[in-house]
Amino acid sequence: MVFIDANTPFSPTIIDLPQLKEGELLVRNHYATICASDLHTFYGRRKSCGHSILGHEIIGTITALAGKGVLDYFGNPLKKGDKITWSVYAYDPQSPTSRKGFPQKSEALYKYGHEQMNEAYKLNGGFSSHCHLREGTTIFKLPYSLTEKEAAPLNCTHATIAGALRLAGNLKGKNVLVNGVGMLGLSACAMAKEKGAAQVWAQDLHPDKLAFSKSFGADHTILFKDLESKILTKPYGKIDIIIETSGVPEAMEKCIQLLGIGGTMILVGAVFPQRDLLVNAEHLVRNLLTIKGLHNYIPQDLASAIDFLSTAKRKYPFESLVGKEFALEELDSAFEAGNEGRYYRVGIKP
Amino acid sequence: MVFIDANTPFSPTIIDLPQLKEGELLVRNHYATICASDLHTFYGRRKSCGHSILGHEIIGTITALAGKGVLDYFGNPLKKGDKITWSVYAYDPQSPTSRKGFPQKSEALYKYGHEQMNEAYKLNGGFSSHCHLREGTTIFKLPYSLTEKEAAPLNCTHATIAGALRLAGNLKGKNVLVNGVGMLGLSACAMAKEKGAAQVWAQDLHPDKLAFSKSFGADHTILFKDLESKILTKPYGKIDIIIETSGVPEAMEKCIQLLGIGGTMILVGAVFPQRDLLVNAEHLVRNLLTIKGLHNYIPQDLASAIDFLSTAKRKYPFESLVGKEFALEELDSAFEAGNEGRYYRVGIKP
Repeated sequence: MVFIDANTPFSPTIIDLPQLKEGELLVRNHYATICASDLHTFYGRRKSCGHSILGHEIIGTITALAGKGVLDYFGNPLKKGDKITWSVYAYDPQSPTSRKGFPQKSEALYKYGHEQMNEAYKLNGGFSSHCHLREGTTIFKLPYSLTEKEAAPLNCTHATIAGALRLAGNLKGKNVLVNGVGMLGLSACAMAKEKGAAQVWAQDLHPDKLAFSKSFGADHTILFKDLESKILTKPYGKIDIIIETSGVPEAMEKCIQLLGIGGTMILVGAVFPQRDLLVNAEHLVRNLLTIKGLHNYIPQDLASAIDFLSTAKRKYPFESLVGKEFALEELDSAFEAGNEGRYYRVGIKP
Repeated sequence: MVFIDANTPFSPTIIDLPQLKEGELLVRNHYATICASDLHTFYGRRKSCGHSILGHEIIGTITALAGKGVLDYFGNPLKKGDKITWSVYAYDPQSPTSRKGFPQKSEALYKYGHEQMNEAYKLNGGFSSHCHLREGTTIFKLPYSLTEKEAAPLNCTHATIAGALRLAGNLKGKNVLVNGVGMLGLSACAMAKEKGAAQVWAQDLHPDKLAFSKSFGADHTILFKDLESKILTKPYGKIDIIIETSGVPEAMEKCIQLLGIGGTMILVGAVFPQRDLLVNAEHLVRNLLTIKGLHNYIPQDLASAIDFLSTAKRKYPFESLVGKEFALEELDSAFEAGNEGRYYRVGIKP
């Protein structure tokens, strides 16, 4: 289902399966979920190239491998029939930026679900029968225990949050505030709790979302409209870590004021054009505060996310986050349903 | 020489030597330097309590120890006649904030050169014949090789920069920009170079200061007025680390734009009231940027600073940074000289 342009119906298209090069493999897509960034692209809230296949939260089964085969993240050979997930990007581990520790910003990065089709690479997203994986993609076999609904968001939502918590450092005994409890925020509540956070606060505009966050590990909730008074009365002067998933400038500005001495705010939500934040440097200095931006993640984070979900699925209702499912042919209706905002995720069954 | 109020002459005062409590010691001050924050206090640019003894960049000789004696940072006993430097604060290592790793913000912190005199503790600064060290002060014997002019700024300037470089992480092969090359900035240039930085850029308003920074390890210099064009032409898209010592909002805002992917800016200069910075969160996220504030330092940083200076003194003219010396009785003239801005430091010989 080819994405042509914003607000234009997807185009059902028949594409020949590709010739694989050394190090590549072909996957039969099993399940994909519509991520908020797919919605931003389709509804024109951010610029993205047309003639591409959207969808990057994907799982699938290997149907073909080229040449001498391909290894997974742990160095084990992959084979036909393996059920896998993979990093949202293929990167060059020898590039200068990868070598500095930022593979997600590698030179000549190739991002699944975002690339314009060309002669050699057409099947590069989740909303398609197959996906053509290039060399430099980090691949993981999926644990049998995970259902499709649970596993599809691993390589975007959960891996990004695993990256945010890696940046946050040891959470043992820390007070964590999760700002915005959409898909990323729920993952952050549960993962912070599993990583030893003492108390988890969830903050959002919507009371219903806040209430739901309690089933994902939030101990306390704060409505955005009450935030100002919370800053004044300072019951949260002891927040050590904030995981910011909303991307809303006003919320980020207020969050900074909730941090106690030595606190850290990790920004992951601000991935769309927006006004500048007002940040007081003297406040950062005197309170020893840190602000860190994170976009995407490193391969190790996807490994952490899989580990996390394999055990956390018993405690938290991750499967329920996929609120509705559609066949691939119904992709237009699926995007409409996703854009209504009633579901954390909408699932596509190619 | 007691500080009474802003813009009021220091008051020469005779004070009895104190009764020492267990764990305390008395120091004969040998040398003190006037730090920019002393000038801010004296000239009323920041609020500080009167009836105190200013001066926290101090070295001295132990003249008395109470009870069972006192240990230095390394756990070795101290004795009368030892020439020492000490942390600018006494802290409680068992306090919650200390235990989180931020002793400089410990509950019941006691800062030399900043505290109002009370019945028990009067001699608490550098601009005085003696200093009364309380329990919880981190003490270091000075290496014989360091001169007084070199050693006095250790426990403020150089320890703070050692803290900033600790936060910056491994500098090996990194491109470092030092923003503002006053005393802190010169220390940062030299320390970054000694810690393996590939290239060090210095940036300042003043051409003469920039030229001088080259004798402290700066490889390249940028005048503040040329900064805008440097951002546009992006020759510095590869700056990995910025050590920000100016505290000037406009400079900080521009510096952020010089950072390459994964870059970090450490703020140490913004220690006075100022307007908020304009910071774009999407820029931080997409470029994986970090901003960290640091105020003062932890004891380990003072240890690093002493190590650094003991060898770096051979390569960089640290002694020359003390441009003029005064006797304690001439403190008013010394502050006038310091406030003119012609010297990196003015020395006081009590």
